[in-house]
Amino acid sequence: MSLKLTILGCHSATPRVNAHPTAQFLEIKNHNFLIDCGEGTQVQLRRYGVKFSKIKHIFISHLHGDHFYGLIGLISTFRLLNRESELHIYGPKGLKEIITLQLKLSNSWTQYPLLFHELTSTESELIYEDEKVEVYTIPLDHRIYTNGFLFKEKSGERKLNVNAISKYKEIKICDYQNLKNGRDFMLQNATVLKNETLTLDPALPLSYAFCSDTAYFSEIIPLIKNVNCLYHEATFLKDKEALAATTKHATAAQAAEIAQQAQVKQLIIGHYSGRYKNKEDFKIEAQEIFENTLLSIEGKVFEIN
Amino acid sequence: MSLKLTILGCHSATPRVNAHPTAQFLEIKNHNFLIDCGEGTQVQLRRYGVKFSKIKHIFISHLHGDHFYGLIGLISTFRLLNRESELHIYGPKGLKEIITLQLKLSNSWTQYPLLFHELTSTESELIYEDEKVEVYTIPLDHRIYTNGFLFKEKSGERKLNVNAISKYKEIKICDYQNLKNGRDFMLQNATVLKNETLTLDPALPLSYAFCSDTAYFSEIIPLIKNVNCLYHEATFLKDKEALAATTKHATAAQAAEIAQQAQVKQLIIGHYSGRYKNKEDFKIEAQEIFENTLLSIEGKVFEIN
Repeated sequence: MSLKLTILGCHSATPRVNAHPTAQFLEIKNHNFLIDCGEGTQVQLRRYGVKFSKIKHIFISHLHGDHFYGLIGLISTFRLLNRESELHIYGPKGLKEIITLQLKLSNSWTQYPLLFHELTSTESELIYEDEKVEVYTIPLDHRIYTNGFLFKEKSGERKLNVNAISKYKEIKICDYQNLKNGRDFMLQNATVLKNETLTLDPALPLSYAFCSDTAYFSEIIPLIKNVNCLYHEATFLKDKEALAATTKHATAAQAAEIAQQAQVKQLIIGHYSGRYKNKEDFKIEAQEIFENTLLSIEGKVFEIN
Repeated sequence: MSLKLTILGCHSATPRVNAHPTAQFLEIKNHNFLIDCGEGTQVQLRRYGVKFSKIKHIFISHLHGDHFYGLIGLISTFRLLNRESELHIYGPKGLKEIITLQLKLSNSWTQYPLLFHELTSTESELIYEDEKVEVYTIPLDHRIYTNGFLFKEKSGERKLNVNAISKYKEIKICDYQNLKNGRDFMLQNATVLKNETLTLDPALPLSYAFCSDTAYFSEIIPLIKNVNCLYHEATFLKDKEALAATTKHATAAQAAEIAQQAQVKQLIIGHYSGRYKNKEDFKIEAQEIFENTLLSIEGKVFEIN
């Protein structure tokens, strides 16, 4: 099992040539999620070879422009490409009104089902679930209502222990699914074979937490405890800690502090302010506190195993 | 006198890598006008070195996304850059609601005056005027309410005929403005010198007409008669004339037909459909009808004298 994260944009505030606002594409258990959608995201998707048809669920953290101004364009492009499949959008209340007003005034309703799941809770909640993956909100501390998102694989099926099974001719292929589901096996002589003698533990489920935009906010720590990968915004370096506090953003050191306290396996930082020319400084600052810190870079793909 | 037009984007429908939707920057008599503002326009302005502070007036033709989805981002960026001067926006009714809803929900009102001039008339009207320039709407025929725009220099001052004036010591520098304004000059001996003996005709005022998006629509011809430069959309070639009619777009041949009938000096075409790989085909088709046809190309600057 693995989790694949493509960085489409990782800069804050205004888009510039070669510096796009927040957008990420997450692949997890054959599910594909778009996280945030700043202006120009549809072009970034094309640039980095993400097929539009893969996108069925879009998560919007908050209604600052650098996180969603590209959404209406993407929705419109899906329409022009004759999309038929459902598109689900999860984001703050108000997003539906913004999008539908524009579709109405352009007389361009989508021919595909466009389904909004508007968020208002300030408590973490389960907002998506199927047999393989679940997604929870992570309420954040920003200037307006903002959620991060926690993507978690569900525990998979047990794996067949082929060597053990091969000793019993009575176990047929049609029994395998029951074994994967954890059931014991009874031989015709009434002997019960315990499931754990015939199967192996499933791979550990993976998890990814996206936290942007937010001030340093310790309340998220229990929600993201032990995740395999945490993306945490780091708009500033600690030289601008006061400005970070005023604008409700985090410094690289604060992102690392959160990662360290939550004992995550890996930290990725981004949402850099345009005032810093050398992104390596963010890594240096964070690594003083949390060693396994990586920089988000546009077009970079992180494989999380 | 000259008129300078920078093409920021000239493709229809969805933005792609190196193919941006409609936006143009027009410089005329030290005025600077942005015409349409598709997604990514702010990055195109940066790419082609247009100073944001120059933009005081933005004209939006219609509310299809490829003509205005970049506007909210540009307005937000002006805010982040601490703009103070007024920004005037001319466009269809509804545009103000779209923009203000997003500013409200992001709790990001502009600190600079944002002034909307909403358009509803289906007759040509004067929407901007000062001592040097006037701008009229050109009602077009598209699927939703759409205006083109006619930018006209006003007749300039007469030019001093330095040779003629130098013969009369009585004419002082303080008299020059009266001469430029067309007044005669009376010598102390009561002889009247006719203005045209002391001045030359002003340069002919220039005009630029922007017409996009629109079907072939002969009603615009009297409005754009004799303009120095006409930009007319040419989404399709004539192989798709039926599709052009259905979608209320024009072919290259139709754009040229309009140019020819309106006896304009120069035609620029654009708003190309992504289905055509070779843009030269548009030029070839148009030039069969109107020889002085040029192709819009991103980043290209047209100087119109």
